[in-house]
Amino acid sequence: MPAGVGWDGAGNVTLSGALLELADRLDADFVALAAAWGAVEMRFPTLIAAAELERIDYFRSFPHLATYAACLAGDEANVAAFTAGDPVVDGAIRLTQLAPVRHVLTPAACYHLYAQHRGQSFEGPRYFTTKCACFRRETHYIPLERQWGFTMREIVCLGTAQETHDFVREATAAVDAYVAQLGLATRWELATDPFFQASKNPQYLMQRIDPTKHELLYDDRLAIASTNVHHDHFGRAFDMTRTQPDGDGEPLFTACVAFGVERWLAAIIGTFGDDESSWPVIGA
Amino acid sequence: MPAGVGWDGAGNVTLSGALLELADRLDADFVALAAAWGAVEMRFPTLIAAAELERIDYFRSFPHLATYAACLAGDEANVAAFTAGDPVVDGAIRLTQLAPVRHVLTPAACYHLYAQHRGQSFEGPRYFTTKCACFRRETHYIPLERQWGFTMREIVCLGTAQETHDFVREATAAVDAYVAQLGLATRWELATDPFFQASKNPQYLMQRIDPTKHELLYDDRLAIASTNVHHDHFGRAFDMTRTQPDGDGEPLFTACVAFGVERWLAAIIGTFGDDESSWPVIGA
Repeated sequence: MPAGVGWDGAGNVTLSGALLELADRLDADFVALAAAWGAVEMRFPTLIAAAELERIDYFRSFPHLATYAACLAGDEANVAAFTAGDPVVDGAIRLTQLAPVRHVLTPAACYHLYAQHRGQSFEGPRYFTTKCACFRRETHYIPLERQWGFTMREIVCLGTAQETHDFVREATAAVDAYVAQLGLATRWELATDPFFQASKNPQYLMQRIDPTKHELLYDDRLAIASTNVHHDHFGRAFDMTRTQPDGDGEPLFTACVAFGVERWLAAIIGTFGDDESSWPVIGA
Repeated sequence: MPAGVGWDGAGNVTLSGALLELADRLDADFVALAAAWGAVEMRFPTLIAAAELERIDYFRSFPHLATYAACLAGDEANVAAFTAGDPVVDGAIRLTQLAPVRHVLTPAACYHLYAQHRGQSFEGPRYFTTKCACFRRETHYIPLERQWGFTMREIVCLGTAQETHDFVREATAAVDAYVAQLGLATRWELATDPFFQASKNPQYLMQRIDPTKHELLYDDRLAIASTNVHHDHFGRAFDMTRTQPDGDGEPLFTACVAFGVERWLAAIIGTFGDDESSWPVIGA
C-alpha cells in the first residue's frame, strides 16, 4: 500500500501525509482549469433525493451501483427491538423495520446541480464546478483505483448545443495540455456508462448510436477523467431552458468534464513512484 | 434562507458564494488552532464499518441517529425485480432484498481515528485533526443548525490522563480566545450525549456521574463546539496503549475538541448579518 493510504478492505480510503497534500494540489489545478470558464464553486451534500434521480430513470439504469441511505423506523418499539438483540453479527447489522428510504449517496457530483436548477431558464451559458464525495457499489475494489466512496471534481456547462460542444472541445484540450505538462501517458477512448442489463436499456443504445462519453485512460486501463455530452437529456428531465435571441426558450443542453481525484493519485504514483521528491510540480 | 444556502428540506445543505468561502476560512482557523499541537491532518472516508462502532456499543447507544449504507443484493434476479416495478413511489424507494449491511455513514469524525490505530502502542502524546462529513438522523432539521449531513472539524489527542486533561484545558482556552476575537457571544455548558433510552444506558449514567462533555453554546442555545474527555473508553475498546516510562503499557486516554462548521456559519450570520462586508476577519 502506498504511504499515506489507509484502506479498509471494503472500498473506503483514508489519505494522509504527502499523498493527501497531493490530492489537494491536484484539485487546486482542476479548479484553476475551471477558472478559464469563470466556473462558480458549489459545495453539495452527500445525500440526494431519490425523487430527483427518478427524473432521469436512474434506478432502472444503475440500481446495482446505488448506495441507499437507510434509517430505522423511529418508533421506540422498533428501535428497542433493534437494540434488544445483537445489533451486529459477524460485521453485518441486523436491521429491524426501516423508515421509508428517500435518499441515496450521490453517485455523481453534477446531479445535484441539475436538481437545484430545476425549472430555471438561462439567458447565457453558465459554468459551475464542484468537488463531491461520490459512491458506487462495485463487485470488487482496489485502493485509489476502484472505490466504493471516491472524490469527483467536475466542471459543468449549462448552455446551447454549440456552447456545450465548444466547452467539451476546450476542456479536452485543457486536460491534454495538463497531462502533457505532468508527463502522464494517457489517451482518450470512447466509453459507455455501466448500465444494468445494458442491452435492454434505451439510454445505453442511444450511447452506442451517438457516443457522448469519452474517458481519459491512464496506462491504457484506468479512466482518470471523462467528458460527457448530455444533449438536452438533463435539460428536459429537470425542465431547464435556454432563452433564445428570437424569443421562446429551448431545452437546455449540458455537458461536463469529471476528474476522479484518487485515480490521479494512482497515476502520479504509478508514473513517478511513491517518493514525493520525484513528483512533477502540481498545484503551483 | 441566507444567501449561499441551498436547502433540500430534508437536512442536506448546499453552500456557495461568500458563505462557502466563509466555511473554508473558518476551517482554516480551526486548522491553525490544531497547529499549536502539531496535529497531523487525516482525510477519512464517509463510510465506517459497523464492526468498528460495535466495539464501543454504538448501536445500543445511538441506533436512532445512525444512517445505514444499504445496497441491493447483487444477484441479477433481485435487481431485475427492483427495476421491474416502480423503483420510486412518492419519493420513497421500493427496495427489494438488501445485501448484508456492514457500514454506516460516520456519525463523528474521530471514530475512524481510533479504528485505524487499533492495537497500537504510543510512546508519547499524538495529535490529529480531520474535517469529515458526519451524519445524524434527527426528527426535524434546520438549515445550518441541525442537519442530517454536516461538517465536523475535530482535533484529537491520544495520550495519558494528564496529557488529555491538559489538551482539553488548552483547547478550551484557545477556543475562548478565538470566539472573543470574532466577537461571538458564547458560554460553555455541561452536556450529555443523546443516548437512546438514556436512563437505561450505563454510559449515559457514567456521563451524569462524571461529566466528560462540554458544549460551547452560541446565543444560549446552539452548540457550535464541544470538548470531550473519553478517559480510557476508546483506548480499551480499540486496544490502544500508552507506554509508560517504568515499563508496561497502560490503556490510552483520548480527548477531542469538535467544531460544527455549518453552525459556526449560523453564529456568524446571526451575529453580524448576511452581508459579508460586516463579518469579522476570518482565515487571515
